[in-house]
Amino acid sequence: MLYSADAKGGLTLLRKGELTRHAILERSAAIASRMGLSGVTIGQLAEDLELSKSGLFAHFQSKQALQLQTLQFAGQLFIDRVIRPALKAHRGEPRMRALFERWLEWAQASTLEGGCLFVAAASELDDREGPVRDELVRQQKAWLELIANVARGGATEGDFHAGMDAEQFAYDLHGVMLAYHHARRLLRDKNAGQRARRAFLALLRVARATPLSRAARKARAS
Amino acid sequence: MLYSADAKGGLTLLRKGELTRHAILERSAAIASRMGLSGVTIGQLAEDLELSKSGLFAHFQSKQALQLQTLQFAGQLFIDRVIRPALKAHRGEPRMRALFERWLEWAQASTLEGGCLFVAAASELDDREGPVRDELVRQQKAWLELIANVARGGATEGDFHAGMDAEQFAYDLHGVMLAYHHARRLLRDKNAGQRARRAFLALLRVARATPLSRAARKARAS
Repeated sequence: MLYSADAKGGLTLLRKGELTRHAILERSAAIASRMGLSGVTIGQLAEDLELSKSGLFAHFQSKQALQLQTLQFAGQLFIDRVIRPALKAHRGEPRMRALFERWLEWAQASTLEGGCLFVAAASELDDREGPVRDELVRQQKAWLELIANVARGGATEGDFHAGMDAEQFAYDLHGVMLAYHHARRLLRDKNAGQRARRAFLALLRVARATPLSRAARKARAS
Repeated sequence: MLYSADAKGGLTLLRKGELTRHAILERSAAIASRMGLSGVTIGQLAEDLELSKSGLFAHFQSKQALQLQTLQFAGQLFIDRVIRPALKAHRGEPRMRALFERWLEWAQASTLEGGCLFVAAASELDDREGPVRDELVRQQKAWLELIANVARGGATEGDFHAGMDAEQFAYDLHGVMLAYHHARRLLRDKNAGQRARRAFLALLRVARATPLSRAARKARAS
């Protein structure tokens, strides 16, 4: 498909195409959050959106391209809903708290009906090879690295102690969110949010704590 | 199918049937650990095991029955490999450590080629209703309750402080293992085991710690 950016008609066409593409990927991401990326098929999408299969093929060429772009679309959504707003908070602990709260909101599936698409995709793709898996790994590593960077910022600000292991913090926080997803979506545990918050606060406490001085250890042992 | 326990021939038939059943469920659990329970089909199993489809139908009647029994088979395997040996350790922290090490071994997929079947099933089934989901929820709740009980035993033994939140400990430890699964299987992070151990030790430290006395807090703040 070729669009001309010079002609007014061409521009309109381009915009319409982009709108359609956005609507398709939005629907596709919602399906993937419930059924996994392998649950996204061109046939299902065509039916849901009342579009022709051939039109969808024109947009995405293959099922793999559709899955890949769905994942990229969800990644952009995550940046817009979680990362960008959280980075506006003050560096250090406030930014880590903002990150956590936004992430929790994201996992509450207000956006994607089936909860976090990435959690579903992770266990779906871990035994498969190919560009869709590679893209997911790239996204997940970038996200864990961003959490670690925010943790390092906390150490620089003096909110966290200087010797903290920022990558371990990212691993631990990720575990808290995975357990939250499991408690909320599978077990339908009403206390899931409270558990996640308590676990997060415990991580913050450990990150803040300077290793005990000899005097403190002595006083504590007494 | 009817077997007679009175006739010698009948007994042999029963045993052969049970052996076949075990072999089928073992293969089925291995497939489910890679592809999810929905990846288990009677057709695929018949091909893998060189059995007739009609013979498999005689064993399991339906795809749902096959999935349910696969899950129950994996649950029994988990009891044999993780729970039963760990419960032999001394009550309290030693038992919690044994539980953790056995669980880590389980997740290392020495038994099931695709890693922990329950992790795959959790994100697969969280948006579906029915007896397979119900069975998974029952298993997962029982497992979290068992961890909490071992934590309570630790408090009784005096290894952990009396006011510890045992259910929170179970939630947190579950998160550590989910993050481990993600790091090992998806990210192929060579440090995954080390990260999981560090996270577990941090949980133990928090569980052991008595709340700081006023004197200790004062010494620490100085």
